[in-house]
Amino acid sequence: MSANQFGERFRWMTFGESHGPAIGVVIDGCPAGVTIDLNFVQAELNKRRPGQVGKVVSPRSETDQVEVLSGILEGKTLGTPIAMMIRNQDARSADYESVKAKPRAGHADDMWNLKFGHSDHRGGGRASGRETATRVMAGAVAQQVIQKLYPDLQFRTFASAIGRFELTDTEKENFIQSRQSYDEYSTRFPSGRNAEVESYLKDLQAKHDSVGGAVQISMKNVPLGLGQPVFHKLKSDLAAAFMSIGATAGVDLGGGDLSMTGQQFHSQSHSKNYGGVRGGISTGETITLTIFFKPTSSILDVARQGRHDPCIVIRAIPVVQAMAACVILDHLLWMRTDRI
Amino acid sequence: MSANQFGERFRWMTFGESHGPAIGVVIDGCPAGVTIDLNFVQAELNKRRPGQVGKVVSPRSETDQVEVLSGILEGKTLGTPIAMMIRNQDARSADYESVKAKPRAGHADDMWNLKFGHSDHRGGGRASGRETATRVMAGAVAQQVIQKLYPDLQFRTFASAIGRFELTDTEKENFIQSRQSYDEYSTRFPSGRNAEVESYLKDLQAKHDSVGGAVQISMKNVPLGLGQPVFHKLKSDLAAAFMSIGATAGVDLGGGDLSMTGQQFHSQSHSKNYGGVRGGISTGETITLTIFFKPTSSILDVARQGRHDPCIVIRAIPVVQAMAACVILDHLLWMRTDRI
Amino acid sequence: MSANQFGERFRWMTFGESHGPAIGVVIDGCPAGVTIDLNFVQAELNKRRPGQVGKVVSPRSETDQVEVLSGILEGKTLGTPIAMMIRNQDARSADYESVKAKPRAGHADDMWNLKFGHSDHRGGGRASGRETATRVMAGAVAQQVIQKLYPDLQFRTFASAIGRFELTDTEKENFIQSRQSYDEYSTRFPSGRNAEVESYLKDLQAKHDSVGGAVQISMKNVPLGLGQPVFHKLKSDLAAAFMSIGATAGVDLGGGDLSMTGQQFHSQSHSKNYGGVRGGISTGETITLTIFFKPTSSILDVARQGRHDPCIVIRAIPVVQAMAACVILDHLLWMRTDRI
Amino acid sequence: MSANQFGERFRWMTFGESHGPAIGVVIDGCPAGVTIDLNFVQAELNKRRPGQVGKVVSPRSETDQVEVLSGILEGKTLGTPIAMMIRNQDARSADYESVKAKPRAGHADDMWNLKFGHSDHRGGGRASGRETATRVMAGAVAQQVIQKLYPDLQFRTFASAIGRFELTDTEKENFIQSRQSYDEYSTRFPSGRNAEVESYLKDLQAKHDSVGGAVQISMKNVPLGLGQPVFHKLKSDLAAAFMSIGATAGVDLGGGDLSMTGQQFHSQSHSKNYGGVRGGISTGETITLTIFFKPTSSILDVARQGRHDPCIVIRAIPVVQAMAACVILDHLLWMRTDRI
Repeated sequence: MSANQFGERFRWMTFGESHGPAIGVVIDGCPAGVTIDLNFVQAELNKRRPGQVGKVVSPRSETDQVEVLSGILEGKTLGTPIAMMIRNQDARSADYESVKAKPRAGHADDMWNLKFGHSDHRGGGRASGRETATRVMAGAVAQQVIQKLYPDLQFRTFASAIGRFELTDTEKENFIQSRQSYDEYSTRFPSGRNAEVESYLKDLQAKHDSVGGAVQISMKNVPLGLGQPVFHKLKSDLAAAFMSIGATAGVDLGGGDLSMTGQQFHSQSHSKNYGGVRGGISTGETITLTIFFKPTSSILDVARQGRHDPCIVIRAIPVVQAMAACVILDHLLWMRTDRI
Repeated sequence: MSANQFGERFRWMTFGESHGPAIGVVIDGCPAGVTIDLNFVQAELNKRRPGQVGKVVSPRSETDQVEVLSGILEGKTLGTPIAMMIRNQDARSADYESVKAKPRAGHADDMWNLKFGHSDHRGGGRASGRETATRVMAGAVAQQVIQKLYPDLQFRTFASAIGRFELTDTEKENFIQSRQSYDEYSTRFPSGRNAEVESYLKDLQAKHDSVGGAVQISMKNVPLGLGQPVFHKLKSDLAAAFMSIGATAGVDLGGGDLSMTGQQFHSQSHSKNYGGVRGGISTGETITLTIFFKPTSSILDVARQGRHDPCIVIRAIPVVQAMAACVILDHLLWMRTDRI
Repeated sequence: MSANQFGERFRWMTFGESHGPAIGVVIDGCPAGVTIDLNFVQAELNKRRPGQVGKVVSPRSETDQVEVLSGILEGKTLGTPIAMMIRNQDARSADYESVKAKPRAGHADDMWNLKFGHSDHRGGGRASGRETATRVMAGAVAQQVIQKLYPDLQFRTFASAIGRFELTDTEKENFIQSRQSYDEYSTRFPSGRNAEVESYLKDLQAKHDSVGGAVQISMKNVPLGLGQPVFHKLKSDLAAAFMSIGATAGVDLGGGDLSMTGQQFHSQSHSKNYGGVRGGISTGETITLTIFFKPTSSILDVARQGRHDPCIVIRAIPVVQAMAACVILDHLLWMRTDRI
Repeated sequence: MSANQFGERFRWMTFGESHGPAIGVVIDGCPAGVTIDLNFVQAELNKRRPGQVGKVVSPRSETDQVEVLSGILEGKTLGTPIAMMIRNQDARSADYESVKAKPRAGHADDMWNLKFGHSDHRGGGRASGRETATRVMAGAVAQQVIQKLYPDLQFRTFASAIGRFELTDTEKENFIQSRQSYDEYSTRFPSGRNAEVESYLKDLQAKHDSVGGAVQISMKNVPLGLGQPVFHKLKSDLAAAFMSIGATAGVDLGGGDLSMTGQQFHSQSHSKNYGGVRGGISTGETITLTIFFKPTSSILDVARQGRHDPCIVIRAIPVVQAMAACVILDHLLWMRTDRI
């Protein structure tokens, strides 16, 4: 395994520094014959852009136009590696020398420097959150393959907590059962309190502050039998996927109340406590995980203060969904060799 | 990658059904020339046995004697695969036919049956918690290699929550800083309340009930620079490791209060909020994670009621430590190729 | 990837030193539901034993009884790792100290010692040809899975050259088309000259000498489409498999006359020049490879002179067939994810 | 493992169809801190171009300018993935529809079509020899890392046979010991007969014919201890590397005369019979392999007749060297974890 590669059957390798020439992904193992809509890939990418979110944050000028280099011909996958790339537009070479002198506080720059001996002083390099755009591209392909294989499988992803605001169980359930897009809420917090959250975030931004929060993902109509029983349990692969995202601090499966006793927890009416996974394997029920994020550290980056993300959770939603889709597709393909 | 294999540089594959002839592990990638004390391996295995825990549970008769099949000569690793095996003693063939007729409620048996078409009806098969003994063997080797490379590196692992009991921050910190073994507490809950917890658990057992809880692991003196920056972040590999254990429901890194704002969270005095990992890479500070466990489902297994584990957390401690050691060693070896 | 592991979908890890407690294999990725006949596994193992071959060589006492540790229940694969082991009987501890003092000339012992710092002085350790028994076990499982999936697929394997003796094209073709087993010839050289070859080999053995030779494998009725187009071409994976066997010196695909011009080579009547593989992918025609072996180096091992193998090719035949079966099965499984 | 990926520690994934937008490679696992000279990468690429070879072949207009997308900053590797790309210039869309209608005889197009359900009808797609340019880029990076680690290690690669012409042992040895570049000979056949070979090839080309041949690679001053003892023997990984190149038909290690008896073969004066590898591990002596190539099948491609390669061996030389360098570097990095 190499450091910049994810997945087993649906395997992809990402590349690119945030201020280098380009970032991109090469997907190896995508089955042939799937129609890929690049507009969907682009739309997913757009959801990751800072400026998309309710005017809460001032966008860095990321136009992020996807370019396909290989693997798709006349709209269909060839079974060959799918390479996709985004040129970096915002190289800001003017800021260059100042950043070089002083690694940005709160960022991983100094860790990289110590590890590799020298690092990319151009603004985050590979440690930048910008690398997540390559995940969104891979995930957008995965979602389309899944859609073809299991048209009823749905990813329902949203902000379940932003700072001191938390969704109620009813709000969560309503959104999951609805056909709404998370983008119908400017803060991706599907609640009547959305406007309140938006103003809270703008206030934090103005104060050069930030908060953490949580993303919930509920996957409906995932077929039974996904996951391998010991080390590649579905929950293990999903946890690895989510904890590989920059600001994550934790992952919960199911969200059952762990203060319950076993007799309560395992009673019929609480089967959702399992989160849709038992013995490492999907049960056919809705799979639910919650991913916790730390408050954004970019508040410490003087150059970005005031135009920083006050809560990274909002932009992380398409990234979480992309990672989940890649794990699910990996196991959908893996399942093809479980039996003779 | 295959389903029963873990790690990249320090890679191991496990085998064995709980009521088959044997369970075991083959470790590939262990450097040559390390002295391995088999007594340590056996001692770690013993800590995983039901009967070890404060007489809280009646032990299934697991003698679990480790047998080395290869890779160690005259007490030292050869650089060849280290195969270790435990014969299953407790095959209980008498119970056989009854179990065959009816998969045990609450267990993963039925999932396996649906996935693979047929499954091991002899009592859990590979889904049984018994497979974790193979992890403990791998981890006991890993711990000894680490000890040789970094004598100051320490794993401090303990039950931080058992049902409604939770350690205070002070209790946690005292134990981490001490030289105590978790085995000095019958419930592995290092608190003056240990006796109270023990009686609580006995009571649960008598009622055929169980509770969940949490294991905390704090790794001291881990060198800076472990972890790969994108997908093999140290936190991602650790999360995958812990979430591959049967009853886990969640993982937290650091345990910082996520309701803090960014300015609080990232202030100097809260650097422990990072949990010892930044940008996916170890900082040289203590690495702390908490792993959450569901209440034991074996309460639903009529054959084991009354001698079931009332809280799996206790036995899970050596397993958590073993998995952590394997991840840490993997990255210690990986780090050797980071630079020219 | 680790050093002692082979295959992608049908993946197996081997362990064991020649004079340690045991040698064995763990197979991960064998589909569930296949009936495995252990007598077939044992029969394949027996074909690898020195004593089997026309009384040409005096056998070392390798009884080599296979023991299944996991993965098979009531004769069928469970989808869990299949662990198989052979206890080493012939530990010859008497010879121990003398060998320790002086690595055996012509063997790889000294290479290992230099590489790993210390090595197994008990007689070859892991470098011994004895490790190939573990390959035969894996291959015997693979052959049975293939048989179930493609009953018409046949492996036709034989000695095509032993020292100065070479099969004619007609002899090769006759054997491939026949239903004969290679064991019907004491030297596994399917020719009227078999008795002559046998006496030649006995003569070499008496003179403490040896010769090289070649194994041909022809695989009939392999389905079209096996192999991946760039790095995992079928010919590449087969070459890697064969060149991982101890005494191999070369591999040829097809055996077309390379002195032909392109117009001759690619003409319709010579389609067998492709060896059944084009563009890295099986064509549905018979796949033919020849593997070349060096003269046995065990002639240099004083302790074994006179009872050494005068030509390793004979014993290598079941090993070659085992490796081929594992590669073919790997790609049969891989093919399941080529298309949507 | 995925189909378009090579190597373990020094791992790279390639992408691109011959008539798609671009071809490229992403290298993961290149250590940080190595100075990379892009002129060297470009020079290696140029050696692969048809037109370079003694005016023997009319070049297809492959300008093949390498573009670095990531992983190198200010001339040094960052330890992050190195992505390099070549835009395809020669898309020849005019020929498009005709090719679409009729897969090119003698090419792998039809195999791909059957395997993947649809294929790239634009002229070879991924099966085209054009993909080897991506290998040359990876190899050019590997060669520079090796140069830094082992300045004395040298790759001596050349055509040892072209059709009916074969180098004598003396010619081979002279070239290996010299400081000549293979490019000093228009046919890369280092012999006084070079001009004769050139005219032979021109004649073949005029007749729309081709021949096979052989490439010899001799690696000098490779350190002792490279290679893993069982499945990743150095010879096995090299064989896999070479047999993954399109037109290869065979690989020989050492080139010892296999008709020798063991006593001759293993005598002191023939230690070169081992080819520099024993027990799968490099001995410190020169490592020599010969790779055999089939006659070019592009003679069957009407569109290219007369400007086809009469002998692919010539262009294959930088590709063989690139693959060898990648394998050697992989094992140089691997060796760092052999011992404690």
